[in-house]
Amino acid sequence: MTDPGARAADRLAQLAGLSAPGPGVTRLPFTEHHRAALDLLRGWMEGAGLQVRLDDAGTLIGRLDGPEGAPTFLMGSHQDSVREGGAYDGIMGVVLPLLALERLRAEGVRLPFTVEILAFADEEGVRFPTALLGPRALAGTVDMGVLDMQDADGVTLRAAMEGFGLHPDAIPGLARPPAGIIGYLETHIEQGPVLERAGQALGVVTAICGIERHPITVTGQTGHAGTLPMEGRRDALVGAAALVAEVHRLAQSTDGLLGTVGYLEVAPNAVNAVPREVRLTAEFRSADDAVRDGGGAALHRFAAALADRSGLGIDIRRSYAQPAQPCDAALSDRLETAIRDQGGAGLRLASGATHDASAMADLCPVAMLFVRCRDGLSHTPAEHADPADMGAAVTAIVAVLKGLAGARR
Amino acid sequence: MTDPGARAADRLAQLAGLSAPGPGVTRLPFTEHHRAALDLLRGWMEGAGLQVRLDDAGTLIGRLDGPEGAPTFLMGSHQDSVREGGAYDGIMGVVLPLLALERLRAEGVRLPFTVEILAFADEEGVRFPTALLGPRALAGTVDMGVLDMQDADGVTLRAAMEGFGLHPDAIPGLARPPAGIIGYLETHIEQGPVLERAGQALGVVTAICGIERHPITVTGQTGHAGTLPMEGRRDALVGAAALVAEVHRLAQSTDGLLGTVGYLEVAPNAVNAVPREVRLTAEFRSADDAVRDGGGAALHRFAAALADRSGLGIDIRRSYAQPAQPCDAALSDRLETAIRDQGGAGLRLASGATHDASAMADLCPVAMLFVRCRDGLSHTPAEHADPADMGAAVTAIVAVLKGLAGARR
Repeated sequence: MTDPGARAADRLAQLAGLSAPGPGVTRLPFTEHHRAALDLLRGWMEGAGLQVRLDDAGTLIGRLDGPEGAPTFLMGSHQDSVREGGAYDGIMGVVLPLLALERLRAEGVRLPFTVEILAFADEEGVRFPTALLGPRALAGTVDMGVLDMQDADGVTLRAAMEGFGLHPDAIPGLARPPAGIIGYLETHIEQGPVLERAGQALGVVTAICGIERHPITVTGQTGHAGTLPMEGRRDALVGAAALVAEVHRLAQSTDGLLGTVGYLEVAPNAVNAVPREVRLTAEFRSADDAVRDGGGAALHRFAAALADRSGLGIDIRRSYAQPAQPCDAALSDRLETAIRDQGGAGLRLASGATHDASAMADLCPVAMLFVRCRDGLSHTPAEHADPADMGAAVTAIVAVLKGLAGARR
Repeated sequence: MTDPGARAADRLAQLAGLSAPGPGVTRLPFTEHHRAALDLLRGWMEGAGLQVRLDDAGTLIGRLDGPEGAPTFLMGSHQDSVREGGAYDGIMGVVLPLLALERLRAEGVRLPFTVEILAFADEEGVRFPTALLGPRALAGTVDMGVLDMQDADGVTLRAAMEGFGLHPDAIPGLARPPAGIIGYLETHIEQGPVLERAGQALGVVTAICGIERHPITVTGQTGHAGTLPMEGRRDALVGAAALVAEVHRLAQSTDGLLGTVGYLEVAPNAVNAVPREVRLTAEFRSADDAVRDGGGAALHRFAAALADRSGLGIDIRRSYAQPAQPCDAALSDRLETAIRDQGGAGLRLASGATHDASAMADLCPVAMLFVRCRDGLSHTPAEHADPADMGAAVTAIVAVLKGLAGARR
């Protein structure tokens, strides 16, 4: 099996078997399934001539040394999945760069820099209410307080890591000096339909979108649906419905803005009771922080006007805001060239989702290569990337590495 | 304590103490609290010279015989409450007519007809998914299949009744010949703010509104809120919000129509997931069946057009429709006169809620006297009717009984 796309599919199928019971893949950090996945990856990495170790944040690191004193280029993604997720999200970004190094080895190419392939423990944040410990450790941005967070069984992150053989107190010592790092390349399924709609196997990420969230509580007055006259009703759900419509309208009418109300709860939620209170969360994302800020501010103005004219109480606040993280222009240009050289368009697109690259950006220049996924689906057992598309990604990674090598010779 | 309002308040306070633990009143049918309430009522009824018995539907009947062969006038309401409800809903309609009979007795008035005061077991339908067994038994409209329904503990209605000492198989024999019944008068708190807003203690019910319910399922496509572009999104919550707004708009713009979406559930209901499915229920009520039908039909047309333009799946069906029940004109005129004679306006208003009178209407002419309640509240421990208003209701009932007596002499 020399075709890298087929090899990728085979390896991802093996990794998908390392899962908690149930549909699809459920591989949470610091579990037996995590251990089994690392054992499999370690074998492939060692077979490719890499030196392998596990750092104290749970990141498996496969290292291919360059010349003495040479800087290091990093590639990777996360090993973990959501519950009942798919076989590609995250782990594909560990498997494909390793296949790229295997190809270079077969071609007898020696790179003038060190390469490390990173399999981070926890990007999804499913087991613990925190994520990105691995890349944050490398960037030196870990808040050590997160070690006290507990999973659903009351196990702290610290205890889970110690049970995995790690020494979490050593995390501060994992921070890398930025000077020695060339950059970080993450390969990931798109998790959306843009590449599929455009008929493209690969795309280059312009930026990882910023996100802001606005928890909203709409407070009205409940009453019997038969006895409370329409005149003077303060129905919390009617107010909430106007907010849902406005979030959608704002995002549809603003270039580069995504807006979603994904969560909404009604109280008392009885067929014959006028709703007293609705809690909902509005979320905006954009690769352009000004656009995102503008969306949030417009929603706050709409809410204030709605409260005035309806008599409803509307409590809205921005609870969370994370700026957009632009990708490195030079690395992204190399990716685009590598895609065009295979006949692709080199499509640029923003990433609406957060990735390990978001945290790695605090350490070094980052770039992301997106691979088309079927029907835009992720976080489901139906998640799928075509072997041919994965093969194209390996070819693109090889080209980027060769290009970086050429620039350094 | 001769003031009937103060006596009513005192008796209702005693009855409110007969409740399951917790805030307010929780008195479910065929329980020890039901038994205790009947014992208290029986004592008062017997003290007023009534003959008291419990029928096999659990209705406590206090009977004051008129002349041999005279017809019967019925008055009453239900003894049960919702969970953590108030001290007035239902039971006040048993206490006040008894005080009216006590007043007539004190005045030495003998009525030329028989009077029965009825304390029905179950109007709220909280313990079993059925209600109105008592009035339906009198009207001969009981579906005996309901006896197999179970409460949350798996106890059938039949078993609960038998445990209460009743013989449910005897229910069909309880049906009254309509010829011998003059009518049924139910006194009840308004459960809404209309009388309070109008500054009126009492009001006359024109009709018990008809009700129709429309369960709706809106089906879209879920996806990651960051990776699914706005273009082509099929967000189930955005569709549901439009339906909520339309139900409200239809009711606000149509005279005599109430429209409410009280229940709405989102799936998967995660902050960062585009909603896949929303289930909601639209309810319309009106005293005019044509108005109510028109509201439901307009919503179905709106839903069909919304499905067409949005690409959402919208399943909507009318699952339930109960026609309006007009109150008897002659009895209602007597009530209005009785209220005007006390200086009230004799305000007419529809009842948006169902009452025992809804089922009694299958047996005989019905009328309803509404008593103002504070802030329009019911089904809460805060439920309150003023003693003076209850006293005015007793006076009105006395006047109606005297008027009926005059008409029969």
